[in-house]
Amino acid sequence: MSSSASSPVLLAPALLDRFASIVGEAHVLREAADIAPRLVENRGLYHGASPMVLKPATVEEVSAILKLATETGTAIVPQTGNTGLVGGQTPREGGSDIILSLERMNRIRDIDPVANVIVVDGGCILADVQRAAEQRGRLFPLSLGSEGSCRIGGNLSTNAGGTAVLAYGNIRQLCLGLEVVLPTGEIWNGLRRLKKDNTGYDLRDLFIGAEGTLGVITGAVLKLFPQPLGHQVAFAGIASVEDALTLFKNASSLCAGALTGFELMPRIGVEFTARNIEGVRDPLASPHPWYVLIDISTSDTAETAERMMTTLLEQGFEAGLVQDATIASSEAQRQALWHMRESMSDAQKPEGGSIKHDVSVPVSQIPQFMHEAEKAVMAAMPGARICAFGHMGDGNIHYNISQPVGADKAQFIGRWREMNHIVHGLVLKHEGSISAEHGIGQLKRDELAEIRPGIEIELMKRIKRSFDPAGIMNPGKVVLV
Amino acid sequence: MSSSASSPVLLAPALLDRFASIVGEAHVLREAADIAPRLVENRGLYHGASPMVLKPATVEEVSAILKLATETGTAIVPQTGNTGLVGGQTPREGGSDIILSLERMNRIRDIDPVANVIVVDGGCILADVQRAAEQRGRLFPLSLGSEGSCRIGGNLSTNAGGTAVLAYGNIRQLCLGLEVVLPTGEIWNGLRRLKKDNTGYDLRDLFIGAEGTLGVITGAVLKLFPQPLGHQVAFAGIASVEDALTLFKNASSLCAGALTGFELMPRIGVEFTARNIEGVRDPLASPHPWYVLIDISTSDTAETAERMMTTLLEQGFEAGLVQDATIASSEAQRQALWHMRESMSDAQKPEGGSIKHDVSVPVSQIPQFMHEAEKAVMAAMPGARICAFGHMGDGNIHYNISQPVGADKAQFIGRWREMNHIVHGLVLKHEGSISAEHGIGQLKRDELAEIRPGIEIELMKRIKRSFDPAGIMNPGKVVLV
Repeated sequence: MSSSASSPVLLAPALLDRFASIVGEAHVLREAADIAPRLVENRGLYHGASPMVLKPATVEEVSAILKLATETGTAIVPQTGNTGLVGGQTPREGGSDIILSLERMNRIRDIDPVANVIVVDGGCILADVQRAAEQRGRLFPLSLGSEGSCRIGGNLSTNAGGTAVLAYGNIRQLCLGLEVVLPTGEIWNGLRRLKKDNTGYDLRDLFIGAEGTLGVITGAVLKLFPQPLGHQVAFAGIASVEDALTLFKNASSLCAGALTGFELMPRIGVEFTARNIEGVRDPLASPHPWYVLIDISTSDTAETAERMMTTLLEQGFEAGLVQDATIASSEAQRQALWHMRESMSDAQKPEGGSIKHDVSVPVSQIPQFMHEAEKAVMAAMPGARICAFGHMGDGNIHYNISQPVGADKAQFIGRWREMNHIVHGLVLKHEGSISAEHGIGQLKRDELAEIRPGIEIELMKRIKRSFDPAGIMNPGKVVLV
Repeated sequence: MSSSASSPVLLAPALLDRFASIVGEAHVLREAADIAPRLVENRGLYHGASPMVLKPATVEEVSAILKLATETGTAIVPQTGNTGLVGGQTPREGGSDIILSLERMNRIRDIDPVANVIVVDGGCILADVQRAAEQRGRLFPLSLGSEGSCRIGGNLSTNAGGTAVLAYGNIRQLCLGLEVVLPTGEIWNGLRRLKKDNTGYDLRDLFIGAEGTLGVITGAVLKLFPQPLGHQVAFAGIASVEDALTLFKNASSLCAGALTGFELMPRIGVEFTARNIEGVRDPLASPHPWYVLIDISTSDTAETAERMMTTLLEQGFEAGLVQDATIASSEAQRQALWHMRESMSDAQKPEGGSIKHDVSVPVSQIPQFMHEAEKAVMAAMPGARICAFGHMGDGNIHYNISQPVGADKAQFIGRWREMNHIVHGLVLKHEGSISAEHGIGQLKRDELAEIRPGIEIELMKRIKRSFDPAGIMNPGKVVLV
């Protein structure tokens, strides 16, 4: 999927010096060893090259960098936490992409717990934003596995989802306003704090999810929420995906906005975590084909959450939907249940190669999709271990396939596109999405162009050209112009 | 603000015949008397001219119309319910804009109460969509005064708000997918039903709120919700806007997503409705400076809503925030309280001229904004009767000014721009919006260009030009290219 690349410096040294002078030499990385960690991403699918990393401290410095880039036709790759899963933050292999890191722009600019807004730099680490909110008695609900290192600018550029989407939405729904530096260097101050504002085209939502191809998000106004008074987490053993779906519908009707998580996990995923993640054990006495993690948060009283969870599970037992269940009785137990779910990706690593899919289908079609995909995958690769888990309430399944026991890893990974083709084909049959929350980046760019109507790709190209006439903003990602 | 215009036919008869042949002569209006109602809007601010109204029945006919329009440089004004308040649906005065009405495209294409989605034509009347949902035990929450005649395509094109935004959001938050005919005639099928889909630029949200200047929305996938089990409505007398804000914050913390409405009304608004709207009476025994209507809906039990409302009002009485209150004890009483609020616009008509503003400020700044605006308006126009009411929880105030008793209506209306200048100046001081939910249309186009950063208007122009190269889509609205 990529070749190991050296770092040929294709840009003239004098030009590099001009870029460096904008941020000051102390905030530039030029040594290959210093740059190296920025050229790879977590999955090891892409390995790029770059002559330098620039670390601006201000919006004005970002502006000066992009202005010079447009004037000189120099490609710029914005990078925040480098946790992306589709190669969107990785420079191309040619060695002429300069990396622009927002890591020094990590200030909480303002927090107003009364108005329930926080204003942050694009380089703020997600966990720091969560913590700042918590210290003022508020909740910033975006939560995902990489929250300790991913940064808000990247979260916004990929429209990050995570485990709290069911009640709070993707980060798109959590964002009121943006500050963006355009490829030409112009600064758009759209840092509005308004819930309602119908004044022209929705530029904010155009930059959100554009993966840094239309500009650099340097600041954002985000929504805060009251911290819930009641919080209940349960873990239930379920016979089938159909039963899990019925239980989800019951939970939605009963809890509405109080249903803050509904995660589906297969038996093999629980086995992987119990075997490979320290401190994790199967919370139930005997094995079940499927599991759901149910999270309920209530604002009025703690008792409401307790009553909702008890009612949901009791009715579930009576209807034969729930085979066994445990309700966490302490914060530590709640965290332990979530830890199992959140370590399900890491738990696959010791099992050998894993071919990943981040897909969504309409929620009601999850069972049929899962059956058809299992049949097709097992026919193509007997012995494959399917660890398909995820945000059932959002229709979002991380359809991961671990290699058969004892198989050759490289050979297995070599079948990535073949497996993609099988799984994505079924996703499209059910009118689903080939990227529910991770984005397009490099990994799915060509596939997107194949599966979408021509006019859709054409409109994206027109927007890209009109915002980035010199083609310098994260070229080669999302859409080829 | 506009001149009464005749309808000079500037387009060649042969060209008009080509347009007519696409939909068939039976579905064309050419007589001045038939066209006349489509040339004016409810507020009487704009009076346009048009040689014909086309009523296509299919997406393909819309496509053929726009293709011909782009080829021949003919301006097209899309019109649905003609209930817009900023002149966005009114043709220009020159007489060369053809009106494209979606009224025949009014089918419910599909409804899936299990998946909680409904798929509708752009010409569906909002009340029909609400009714279709209700018949299947579901709720489509968008609710506004004109719901009996406004249509979904217009609701989407103006990103309609209304009275249920607090819990459910504007229609932007209620829309999963769109079908749009582009100015060139190409059809974009984006009728997706997915909650999560991170695959490229967010075209959907670009068309929503674009007021028909980027294409014609011919179909949409909308979200449905469970019908609430508990529903409580209260009407409370309040001493000040500050107290109303504190009560709102208490309600938000206590009820979270169950708080489905929090509307602020001044004494004079209650007087206007009691005097001018049949069947409305002041629900409280003695007068109060301000009133709030509180709406709580719960999904788990009816008792939860009852308990929340009782707790909120009891604590409000104890804290001295609530002077008097009544809780509706039947569906009829609930409707009566909402009827008072919803007829507050109509109630102003018998009082003479009314200068309107649809503004928003950050919620926490509503009291200060209201004080400053009252002072400035009364200084400029002694005797003015300020009827400022609206969706407090969204920061959205309809800041309407009725003429002084006995004043000359025309002279009063002649001061529209002066009053705008005063009110909008304070809105901008508080970093608010000059159009919270009604949009830009013709009414606020030039003002928007004045108050927004140049780069923002420039980006809008670039998008407009790249989507509508011939400049035929609702020209003269939102942004001048």
